[in-house]
Amino acid sequence: MTAPTLTSIREAKERLHGVIHATPLAHSTSLSEEAGMDLRFKPENLQITGSFKIRGAFNKIKSLVDAGAKGVVTASSGNHGQAVAWAARYFGLPARIIVPTTAPAIKVASARAFGAEVEFFGTRSRERLERAEQVAQELGYVFVPPYDDAWVMSGQGTLGLEILQEWPDVEAVVVPIGGGGLISGIATAIKETRPDVRVIGVEPEGAAKAFQSRQQGRRVELPGTESLADGLITLALGHLTHPIVERYVDDLYTVSEEAIQQTLWRLMTRLKLVVEPSGAVTSAFLLSEQGRARLGGRRVVAVISGGNVDPEVLRTIPVQ
Amino acid sequence: MTAPTLTSIREAKERLHGVIHATPLAHSTSLSEEAGMDLRFKPENLQITGSFKIRGAFNKIKSLVDAGAKGVVTASSGNHGQAVAWAARYFGLPARIIVPTTAPAIKVASARAFGAEVEFFGTRSRERLERAEQVAQELGYVFVPPYDDAWVMSGQGTLGLEILQEWPDVEAVVVPIGGGGLISGIATAIKETRPDVRVIGVEPEGAAKAFQSRQQGRRVELPGTESLADGLITLALGHLTHPIVERYVDDLYTVSEEAIQQTLWRLMTRLKLVVEPSGAVTSAFLLSEQGRARLGGRRVVAVISGGNVDPEVLRTIPVQ
Repeated sequence: MTAPTLTSIREAKERLHGVIHATPLAHSTSLSEEAGMDLRFKPENLQITGSFKIRGAFNKIKSLVDAGAKGVVTASSGNHGQAVAWAARYFGLPARIIVPTTAPAIKVASARAFGAEVEFFGTRSRERLERAEQVAQELGYVFVPPYDDAWVMSGQGTLGLEILQEWPDVEAVVVPIGGGGLISGIATAIKETRPDVRVIGVEPEGAAKAFQSRQQGRRVELPGTESLADGLITLALGHLTHPIVERYVDDLYTVSEEAIQQTLWRLMTRLKLVVEPSGAVTSAFLLSEQGRARLGGRRVVAVISGGNVDPEVLRTIPVQ
Repeated sequence: MTAPTLTSIREAKERLHGVIHATPLAHSTSLSEEAGMDLRFKPENLQITGSFKIRGAFNKIKSLVDAGAKGVVTASSGNHGQAVAWAARYFGLPARIIVPTTAPAIKVASARAFGAEVEFFGTRSRERLERAEQVAQELGYVFVPPYDDAWVMSGQGTLGLEILQEWPDVEAVVVPIGGGGLISGIATAIKETRPDVRVIGVEPEGAAKAFQSRQQGRRVELPGTESLADGLITLALGHLTHPIVERYVDDLYTVSEEAIQQTLWRLMTRLKLVVEPSGAVTSAFLLSEQGRARLGGRRVVAVISGGNVDPEVLRTIPVQ
C-alpha cells in the first residue's frame, strides 16, 4: 500500500475509536467576523499528546503489533516522537526515539514521560535516520516513518472524516503542510467522498516545498528551510505524499513569519487556545487579505495541527 | 424568587439550548497523574464571550425581554459586562455598561464590540452601582445584577446539569467563588439531584469571603481584597448567595497567589487552554498538597470559569 484509501482511512477510524479524542470543532464569533467567513477550527492541540500525530502513529503501530513487532524506533524529537512513545506504551511495546544532541530538554522530557528510551545522536536528520535504521536492525525494532507511509497517512485522514461528519455543510478545509502526511490523509478522505469540498494547503514562506513543487511541476527539495513553525520545516514532500498532494489538493498558499506570530496571540486571546506556530499557519492564511479574498463568505475549517509550544516562545512574541 | 430551584435551572437550560455551547469536559493525562485523581475540566473559557457569565446574563435578560424591558444596564467592566452586552444584542435590546474611569481599554473594547454603550463613571463599585440605578430610572432600563439574583444563579446552574449529564460517575465538582452566583447555581443543580456528589468552593487567599463567613458563622464583608484573580475579589458573598453556599457547599478552600500563577502556565502547556487567573484557582487547589489529600483517587471536575486574560499578564508571569 503506497497511498491511503477511503477504506484504509475508515479502518483507521475504527482502530482509533475510544483511544483518541474526536476533537469537536471550535468557533469564535469575532474571528469569523474578522475573516468574513463562517470559520471553525479543528483543535488537534487538544488531542492526546497535543497534536494530530497520534492518529497516524497509533494506526501504524497497531499494524506493526498485529504483525508481531518487538519494538519501534523513530527519529523525531517533536510531535511524531511523542506520538510514537504514547502509542508504543499503549501496546506495551518498547520504543526508542533518536533525537539530536541539541534537542531542547522540554521536548525530550515528554517522550520520556511516556516511557520511551531517548537516544541523543548527531545533529543532522540524515544521521539520525541512519542511526534509527541501525537500531532497527540491531534490536529487531520497526522504524515508524513520520509521514511517508500509507498507514500513517490513513490515520491522519480520520481527521477529515470527523470534519465531514460534524459539519456536513463545510465548503473548504485548510491544512498545514510539513512532510505532507496530514494533508494527504485529509484530502483523500474528503475528495473520495465529497469532491465538492475544497482542500487547501498552507506553508510558511520559509519552507514552501509544496508550493515550489507545484510551480515547477516536480517534487522539489529545498536547499534549506527556516520558520518559527518548526513542524513544517521539512525540506521536501515525501515520495508518497507528493503525488497525493498534486492529485487532491486544490490550492497551495504561503504565509509570512509575521502573520504566524500575530495569529498565535489572536488564537490565544479570541479562541482561548494555545496553538503551536505550525498549527497557526492555517488561521494566519484565513485572516490574511489573500485568505479573505479566496474564501470570504464560505464555511471553512482551519486545522489546528497541535499545541506543543515552548512557553518561552509565546513570552517572547510581542502581543499584537 | 430568591433562590434557584431544580425547575428554574432546567428551564434556564431549555432557554440556553442552541444559544450557548454545552462545553465538553477536557482532560489531560499528565495533570490527572500529577493530581493523583481522574481530573477533568469544564472549559467555560471556550464559552461564548469567554466565560460562564453568559449563562446567567442570558437567562436573566430573556426574562426581562418577556416582561417587556426596554433596555438593560449593568456596572461591570469584566465578564459579566461582556455577557450582558452579548445577550442584549441577541435580543436587539439596548445595553449600557458602566465602567470605572480606570477600566483597561481591552475590556471596554469587548463590550463595545458587542454593541453596548459604555459609560465611564467614578472608580468605586458603589458609585457605579448608584449610577447604574440612576440610568435605569432615567431611561427605563432594567439593572442586571452580576450574581445576587435567582435568574442569574439559575443560568449558572445549567453548568452543573451539563457536568452530571456528561459524566454521571463524577464524585466532586470544584468551583471558584467570587460573589457566589456560579457555585450557588451549580450546587443547587447537583445537590437537588445527586446529593452524593461533593461541591467544593475555592477562593484566593486574598479574597476569602466565603471561607471567613463559614468560620465566623455569618456573612462577612471583608475590608479589602487583593488577587490576580480579578473576577473573585468581591468583598462579600451576596445576601441571596450566602445562605445557598452555607446550605449546599461541602467544603471551602483558599489558594495562594503563587499557586494561581504556576497553574496558569501549567494549564497552557498541558491542557493547551488559555485560562484567566480566576478560572485557574480550582486547578491550583487540586494540584496542591491539600487538593490531593482531599480528593486523591476520586473522579473530579475542576470548573474553569473563563479565559479573558490580558496577554500582558501571561507574558509577565514567569514560566514554572
